[in-house]
Amino acid sequence: MSEFLDLTLPSDALNLILEKISFIPEEETIPTSMALGRVTSRDVFAPHRMPSFSRSAMDGFAVQAKDTFGASETAPAYLPVVGEVPMGANVDFTVESGECALIHTGGMLPSGADAVVMMEYTQMVKDEEVEIYRAAAVGEHIVHAGEDFEAGQVAIAAGVVLRPVEIGGLMAFGITSVQVTRRLRVGILSSGDEVVPPDRDIKPGQVRDINSYSLAALVQQAGADASLLGIIPDKEDALFEAVNAAVEKFDLVLITAGSSASTRDLTARVIDRLGPPGVLVHGINVRPGKPTIFGICQGKPVVGLPGQPLSAMIIGWLLVNPILKKMRGISQAAIKPTVKARMSANVPSMAGREDWIPVLLSEDESGYIAQPIFFKSNLIFNLARANGLVSIPADQTGLHAGEIVEAYLYQ
Amino acid sequence: MSEFLDLTLPSDALNLILEKISFIPEEETIPTSMALGRVTSRDVFAPHRMPSFSRSAMDGFAVQAKDTFGASETAPAYLPVVGEVPMGANVDFTVESGECALIHTGGMLPSGADAVVMMEYTQMVKDEEVEIYRAAAVGEHIVHAGEDFEAGQVAIAAGVVLRPVEIGGLMAFGITSVQVTRRLRVGILSSGDEVVPPDRDIKPGQVRDINSYSLAALVQQAGADASLLGIIPDKEDALFEAVNAAVEKFDLVLITAGSSASTRDLTARVIDRLGPPGVLVHGINVRPGKPTIFGICQGKPVVGLPGQPLSAMIIGWLLVNPILKKMRGISQAAIKPTVKARMSANVPSMAGREDWIPVLLSEDESGYIAQPIFFKSNLIFNLARANGLVSIPADQTGLHAGEIVEAYLYQ
Repeated sequence: MSEFLDLTLPSDALNLILEKISFIPEEETIPTSMALGRVTSRDVFAPHRMPSFSRSAMDGFAVQAKDTFGASETAPAYLPVVGEVPMGANVDFTVESGECALIHTGGMLPSGADAVVMMEYTQMVKDEEVEIYRAAAVGEHIVHAGEDFEAGQVAIAAGVVLRPVEIGGLMAFGITSVQVTRRLRVGILSSGDEVVPPDRDIKPGQVRDINSYSLAALVQQAGADASLLGIIPDKEDALFEAVNAAVEKFDLVLITAGSSASTRDLTARVIDRLGPPGVLVHGINVRPGKPTIFGICQGKPVVGLPGQPLSAMIIGWLLVNPILKKMRGISQAAIKPTVKARMSANVPSMAGREDWIPVLLSEDESGYIAQPIFFKSNLIFNLARANGLVSIPADQTGLHAGEIVEAYLYQ
Repeated sequence: MSEFLDLTLPSDALNLILEKISFIPEEETIPTSMALGRVTSRDVFAPHRMPSFSRSAMDGFAVQAKDTFGASETAPAYLPVVGEVPMGANVDFTVESGECALIHTGGMLPSGADAVVMMEYTQMVKDEEVEIYRAAAVGEHIVHAGEDFEAGQVAIAAGVVLRPVEIGGLMAFGITSVQVTRRLRVGILSSGDEVVPPDRDIKPGQVRDINSYSLAALVQQAGADASLLGIIPDKEDALFEAVNAAVEKFDLVLITAGSSASTRDLTARVIDRLGPPGVLVHGINVRPGKPTIFGICQGKPVVGLPGQPLSAMIIGWLLVNPILKKMRGISQAAIKPTVKARMSANVPSMAGREDWIPVLLSEDESGYIAQPIFFKSNLIFNLARANGLVSIPADQTGLHAGEIVEAYLYQ
């Protein structure tokens, strides 16, 4: 079984894979209102100052701060009101020394004024005069023009996944279309003589195709488009033709082979025939997911995933997700969605191999508890019972009940 | 300012809101392959046993365990090979006592056999005979029929968000269409005399509509459909007509008013006129986000969000997301996506009020560091610089540099 001669750890395999992928995503221009979850393909520059004018952050009176110096409840300042700032329009008056103007939150600061006194520290005493009970500092309750951005600054860097807040920020600048990396096209091939389409009744010895659909959903969840290319017979020439056509058409090809060693060898032979460089990783030192293959054919990355449905999902999460992230052009560092949790039971593991254990996370007054799910890698519902994943590093021989671990949220 | 007379804390407001919403989501049947992220509207039952037949978990030989009793490298058991299990087909032979059969991972266990010996503990000695170096226990390396599910068991409960693993699980059962709650329809209204559409050049005193778009993206991110109903003039009758039409057509209505107190009062009056019960929450004891209004008009929840863009986003995250979760029919408990992080600086806050602080999370060898972003609630890019949110409870007067906090990942 040559395939398992030099097994690498998942992190080493991933580093090698990410280094070998030279894909540069193309860009396209799309409406900003449709850009949620898309990735900026270049820096977005502020087309003008933000805010474009100095505004009040409160309802109150615009003043010259020095006119309020020493003002208090016992010794208020009295200022005549020279106008009311209209919302959404230019201010056509000036606040001179010794004057003030009624202003609303978001209203444009009149020229002359350099501070706003909040409404609650004022009282109208006559029709056109206001008592001020508190001194204002220069700049108080003012959002200054250019305080968020000056024109020409980078507002959003390249390689950023657009969240609701960035969509809003782009709209604030009037940027109603944005350059993003185009959606990746991922082709998914299935093989295995025992595998039949899910809409088919199964005969004894047959199983339905799970992996094509669960992997397509994983690809979709990662913001890429998946195309199902069908179930290919376990014949080298048929698989060669299918993968050859797929690498021509798609940015990334996933092959989910049958579960036996012979079909895995078939996948490796086909990737090698379609190289160079062909197979780069053959077998990973991880459970579940050992029989994973990675190669590059005609410049396109090809991943041969384990046939066992649960293994395919874990490898999808561990390797395919980071591959998609790189190929989508995401360059920002992300915070790992993990929680610290206390193991509720011992989990043995073999030294020298990295294990990933599905866990059911729950919370009590002491924090999170991780209940390990003792799985078989062919039973996909074992993973459906989990909402977290915990790793046992290769240099450990298991986890102890009560041990605090870092659990990844599994979605 | 009657609106702030009895401010409630966000959690109290949310509990009240969720209790008052009586919406029961309708269900629809959709293809399983399109169901990622959708919510099951009823329990899904296993239509047959899973796996439907007993299978080998390894490549090796199917045996009767008792025939391997005491087998070792020095004293192997010798068994004649009576056949090879075909992949994807019924097995037409039996493994009698003293016999074995070649079997591949996923292959159907022949009748008579009760264990599998892994390939690496065997060697073919003659054409039709194998040496076995290790004893097998009954059931070893076998996945039993029904081990994942027996027919009729609940495979996926109602109220579950479908992940890639559940999509795969449904396909394993041949369930190619699934009953889910229909997508929610959320109507979003904007008002404020200073607000203009984002494709418009702004004149002095005007700002572009940010909130409609950032909230639409938030709604979309939460798995619901958003419709933008435009910018309504700051006139009570116009707003009344618009909200009236919206509550008829949509499941949930979001109003993002101008930033001044007068436009907020307008929203409250309109919700009250459209009741009963009308306004249920008027002002929340939180910063940012105090001027938040919640009401029910003609059975439909209506949320009046703060006009300040950053405040609108925080309230969207804090209140609108849980409202959408309930209305989508999600009943499963979710693990909060939080990390423990060390504050890098002091953050003062006012006792008696709950504060939410955007933070930039980064990681060093000691763990996560949360760098507070000192924000102004009208500057949306202040929030764009954050990847986390930290709360300061109402009974605290701030956070200290070095303090360990729970930071929510902000996406």
